[in-house]
Amino acid sequence: GPVATVLRELRCVCLSTTPGIHPKTIANLQVTVSGPKCPRVEVVASLKNGKQVCLDPEAPLIKKVIQKMLDSGNKQN
Amino acid sequence: GPVATVLRELRCVCLSTTPGIHPKTIANLQVTVSGPKCPRVEVVASLKNGKQVCLDPEAPLIKKVIQKMLDSGNKQN
Repeated sequence: GPVATVLRELRCVCLSTTPGIHPKTIANLQVTVSGPKCPRVEVVASLKNGKQVCLDPEAPLIKKVIQKMLDSGNKQN
Repeated sequence: GPVATVLRELRCVCLSTTPGIHPKTIANLQVTVSGPKCPRVEVVASLKNGKQVCLDPEAPLIKKVIQKMLDSGNKQN
């Protein structure tokens, strides 16, 4: 998709952020710290439906989302 | 690099994990939940030196690393 293409370019990926997202809809989450490509921390979630959305790195929700993703492997034990 | 290539293929990326890593060395961190590509949760860190390493999603360190990455934008405010 267009966001995936932008990820390789030398600029910020996220122009806006999606406020609410359910952890179960996320397949992959990328956290990128500030650097030459972008002066901001960016969080990009790739959803199971193929879409990509940006999340606010300062939202308290983020920690819960990441924790649920990290813990998701344990449920199968 | 070779890991980046494997990321696009239909299999697990991580064969082994790196136990200790300093958050400041990480440029980008990807968390991928289990899915058709891999039955495990995988955490891949792209380092500022260009290398990629896998981290243990169950290690307590991960939460601190992610928290420091998310918070890194606030230091400039």
